[in-house]
Amino acid sequence: MDLLKKYSNSLEEHLDKAVTIQEPTQLYEPIKYILDLGGKRLRPILTLMCCDFFEVDYHKAMNAALAVELFHNFSLIHDDIMDNAPLRRKKETVHEKWDLNTGILSGDAMLILAYRLFEDYESALFRELARLFSKTAIQVCEGQQYDVDFERRDDVRLDEYIKMIDCKTAVLIGAAMKMGAIVAGASTACKTSLFEFGRNLGIAFQLQDDYLDAFGNPDTFGKQVGGDIIANKKTFLYLTALERSSPSEAAELRHLFSISPKDPSDKVAIVKRIFENSGAVSATEKEIAHYTQTANEVLNTIKISEERKEELRNFGAWLMRRKV
Amino acid sequence: MDLLKKYSNSLEEHLDKAVTIQEPTQLYEPIKYILDLGGKRLRPILTLMCCDFFEVDYHKAMNAALAVELFHNFSLIHDDIMDNAPLRRKKETVHEKWDLNTGILSGDAMLILAYRLFEDYESALFRELARLFSKTAIQVCEGQQYDVDFERRDDVRLDEYIKMIDCKTAVLIGAAMKMGAIVAGASTACKTSLFEFGRNLGIAFQLQDDYLDAFGNPDTFGKQVGGDIIANKKTFLYLTALERSSPSEAAELRHLFSISPKDPSDKVAIVKRIFENSGAVSATEKEIAHYTQTANEVLNTIKISEERKEELRNFGAWLMRRKV
Repeated sequence: MDLLKKYSNSLEEHLDKAVTIQEPTQLYEPIKYILDLGGKRLRPILTLMCCDFFEVDYHKAMNAALAVELFHNFSLIHDDIMDNAPLRRKKETVHEKWDLNTGILSGDAMLILAYRLFEDYESALFRELARLFSKTAIQVCEGQQYDVDFERRDDVRLDEYIKMIDCKTAVLIGAAMKMGAIVAGASTACKTSLFEFGRNLGIAFQLQDDYLDAFGNPDTFGKQVGGDIIANKKTFLYLTALERSSPSEAAELRHLFSISPKDPSDKVAIVKRIFENSGAVSATEKEIAHYTQTANEVLNTIKISEERKEELRNFGAWLMRRKV
Repeated sequence: MDLLKKYSNSLEEHLDKAVTIQEPTQLYEPIKYILDLGGKRLRPILTLMCCDFFEVDYHKAMNAALAVELFHNFSLIHDDIMDNAPLRRKKETVHEKWDLNTGILSGDAMLILAYRLFEDYESALFRELARLFSKTAIQVCEGQQYDVDFERRDDVRLDEYIKMIDCKTAVLIGAAMKMGAIVAGASTACKTSLFEFGRNLGIAFQLQDDYLDAFGNPDTFGKQVGGDIIANKKTFLYLTALERSSPSEAAELRHLFSISPKDPSDKVAIVKRIFENSGAVSATEKEIAHYTQTANEVLNTIKISEERKEELRNFGAWLMRRKV
């Protein structure tokens, strides 16, 4: 996709200019470090793309796009502390490479720098962008809190789980797209629809991530297959399996999710079998299809050219193609 | 001071309405908790006061004032983690009462909530306030980083120390005052002068805090007298004493600041004697007087009524009166 390459290159160029290491270096080096770990830059690319769709120069959305990427990386730094994660994209996490305090403080600075990126927009635009940003950011915090809470609960309902991934992952994807539309001066209807498109796609994306974590191809899936099962993470698959299993199978599943054997291969195999036999796998696939379809239905209502819609559809498909 | 009481009561009332506990409660309870620990509410009162000075209803500055207070408390939560502090105002700190993750996440949410408080201002005002807020917030992070860096260095210069307390403490006091003037629609000259008044007063205030930590009256000083000495904290007194001591005295001082005896009373007594004999005490008093005087000189240039100036002078004097 040449278009993606174009956005991506412009973004990297802008990032290098906009985020530089200054005094005190201990504060700014970790910010540069995590941004340089790379990643797909999915969110900021969506911002640029959505601005472009309304025939407005996508460079105008560059600062908004970068703000979204900075926010995303701020949340990664702090989440990695909370999850006690040693690695991120196969490199040391910030708190691991430096220390806890550096992780906290650089994260804080990164969140503030994200807000500063909106400052060059004229004031009405600035307020609209900053408002959406704050609303989204607080939802991401709430989502992270729900995620933490769920670890300690064993009565999490499926609708609560969907709400958690909605807050933690999906709204930021929706907001990234909406910001592009805001910068482009799109209508309220268009802005809302793009948000909902991104949000539904985001939920589908996260559910698929849960699915791939257990059933993905070890050669192509970036993370360790079975990682969520090993970590006893209550994913959509697990919660659905619990709901659909016989009492004895449910008891077995609960037990398996309370232990951490040295060699987890048997546990992973048994859990995957329960996931399949209980119908949790097909239910998850259905749920992914449901949110993908909702996203595409929303897309059809947006007043942009058929060609542009096709690009968004392709992008969504590209995102979800990891399935194979 | 009846006026202070009036601002303070309005503020508490507004705070109770504006910050409420909602789902997920684990995220919002710590926010309410730290705000309910009280404190002087020095910064938000300054915001209200400065708005009032320009004959604009100070209620208009209420949200800006609260944003400053939220930011201040956000920084306390995260600083307490970094300093490993068990207590704040004689109560458990947030990370101690809950845990590390709660401290990080509630702090993050609090910073975002502070930004949200500006959202009701019309867009030009919103941008001006949010810009000042972000600029100040990043300086506070830089100040905190310098403070952390200084712990590991033994070549900290006095001008670096002043820069650190300027960033970490003083600019927020200046910004709190400037925000009141911004809401009131004051001239650029007034806004700048109020900022500089607050900033100079803030530096004087912090230097006095250093002084009182060693020489304050144990009956009236809120914290443990000698606490900085026991913690080997490189304050203005210490750095000045090092600069003015003979090589042998300097060596003794360095040694004393490298040990942590079980009973610190001898250490505290010896260090205080070196602080006095080296002239560090009188140098610190002179420095406090210098910044207080600069603050008052700036005040004289501001175009507000003599009566208003007197109030600010009184407030500054009230703030510094803790000396006795």
